Amino acid sequence: MTETPTHVAIGIDLGGTDIKSGLVTPHGTIVKSETIPTEANKGVDHVITRIVGLIESHRQCAVSESLHLDGVGVGSPGTLSHERGIVIAPPNLPNWRNVPIADHIEARIGLRPVLENDANAAALAEFRCGAGRGCDSMVMLTLGTGIGSGIIVDSQLFRGSNENAGELGHTIVELDGRPCNCGQRGCLEAYASASGTAARARERIDAGEASSLASIVAQGREIDATMVADAARAGDALAQSVWRETCRYLAIGCINIVRAFDPERIILSGGMSHAGDHLLRPVIAGFDAMASDMLGNRPEIRIAELGNDAGLVGAALNAIRSD
Amino acid sequence: MTETPTHVAIGIDLGGTDIKSGLVTPHGTIVKSETIPTEANKGVDHVITRIVGLIESHRQCAVSESLHLDGVGVGSPGTLSHERGIVIAPPNLPNWRNVPIADHIEARIGLRPVLENDANAAALAEFRCGAGRGCDSMVMLTLGTGIGSGIIVDSQLFRGSNENAGELGHTIVELDGRPCNCGQRGCLEAYASASGTAARARERIDAGEASSLASIVAQGREIDATMVADAARAGDALAQSVWRETCRYLAIGCINIVRAFDPERIILSGGMSHAGDHLLRPVIAGFDAMASDMLGNRPEIRIAELGNDAGLVGAALNAIRSD
Repeated sequence: MTETPTHVAIGIDLGGTDIKSGLVTPHGTIVKSETIPTEANKGVDHVITRIVGLIESHRQCAVSESLHLDGVGVGSPGTLSHERGIVIAPPNLPNWRNVPIADHIEARIGLRPVLENDANAAALAEFRCGAGRGCDSMVMLTLGTGIGSGIIVDSQLFRGSNENAGELGHTIVELDGRPCNCGQRGCLEAYASASGTAARARERIDAGEASSLASIVAQGREIDATMVADAARAGDALAQSVWRETCRYLAIGCINIVRAFDPERIILSGGMSHAGDHLLRPVIAGFDAMASDMLGNRPEIRIAELGNDAGLVGAALNAIRSD
Repeated sequence: MTETPTHVAIGIDLGGTDIKSGLVTPHGTIVKSETIPTEANKGVDHVITRIVGLIESHRQCAVSESLHLDGVGVGSPGTLSHERGIVIAPPNLPNWRNVPIADHIEARIGLRPVLENDANAAALAEFRCGAGRGCDSMVMLTLGTGIGSGIIVDSQLFRGSNENAGELGHTIVELDGRPCNCGQRGCLEAYASASGTAARARERIDAGEASSLASIVAQGREIDATMVADAARAGDALAQSVWRETCRYLAIGCINIVRAFDPERIILSGGMSHAGDHLLRPVIAGFDAMASDMLGNRPEIRIAELGNDAGLVGAALNAIRSD
């Protein structure tokens, strides 16, 4: 009797600095991984050649290990078309505009990759193999330099009529509020992202408020959200105030998610989620203090489990046969 | 050859003041309608008896007209369970708490009605027979005393994991903003509903700002949103400022809908939508001025078409066989 070969897919997480890649099982286990610099400055073709090289390497590995390769998934930041396999405008790959990456890769290796927004891919990975396991619907906020989001409804990624749904970082939480990188004012991202948090701390230090972080500014260094979180934990009053405000805005983000989608679970991921309970507890407390009881209960809010590999795992899961 | 009988369903729109009812075809045509006072002060049983009376009357009409009765749909305001047929907490039927209305009606007439939130029912009616015809996804904001909403995704009502999705009037658009009837602060409803609009005008008049509306206040009468809209159209500067602010908040509501759901269309309905272009144009202009181009295009924003009958039509459509 022959054993059924293990199914795997190749996941590619295309970032501005690095390309992460791996051979992934349906359970989200990474059998083999490889990360190389993107070298985005050398142009689109060069980057695609590097991606193709990674795919070829993983494909050979699958063959030699007698694994059944279901397909290839590619995760990319920014606007893109999953349907047409086109990277439209990735913020950290400045020369990439309307690149039909699925066509390019298919022409080179004879396999058409499944393209997915990186926040969606990460949400899919957490849903299947991480903090979202066991539910049918969840919303994930990825708290990094910006705020990305991925929405799962009826166990499927929710993409919207033009594949633009789930830009929850750019929902407006203050009329005429802080300017956001997207061009809007008052976006959740402008307040509660890592960069928004750092900027709010910096502004208050520049305005003369006392803080242990002032010495960093005096040295000409930039403040980041991790420094704010650490200083808040160490008792710095300004940092505590800024961090508390970040968590209140995130609580509003979570309340608005519930009012819109009523998901079973909300997952917080990305760099800022490494603060763990220091982030989670005030967000939950803020939700409970600000949300109306009349409109239903708070869903579970959890920290993501898969870390930086979520993007490549999710990209691969998108290309894996589910049976 | 016998002609196939026309399918119809009975729609009931249970309101605090009136119960509207009608026999409705799959195309949303009302064959016969009847409206009676709710007489909510006489208790739950009394109101259910009145509903049952309307159903019996419509059922006899269907029989005598040789129409095929597919079922009964009931629309009710406030929180409820569509799945279990329970009215949980309707704001304008104060003594109704956890009333298993579907069980009660089924026990009396042998037909189980399909229960639906009235904003969802109205959205379904507009989707099938009104301003939402021809698209697959839409979000409707019902601008009345409060702000209700109904969400259609893949041609189906979107209800969420606990049937609490689509409470978009209670998404927060200002941290620590105006108090809302739901207990939260800064809800869209607190700013952009008819009552929120009237309250903002009243506060500014009370604070001494000049306005043609001040004479109404001086007479001891209440200002309503229609008066604000009319005064704005007549050139009153305060009313124009208040109305403009309402439209800007509604524009933010629409932007946030697009960021979350990316629907094909947004429909504005309810009493305030009778202002027509006087509402629609500034909302669209506000959307275009405040929304980022990077995040995709503006969907069509339209005024609802079905008026006050949308609730009963949608309630009936929910109970009609679609074939």
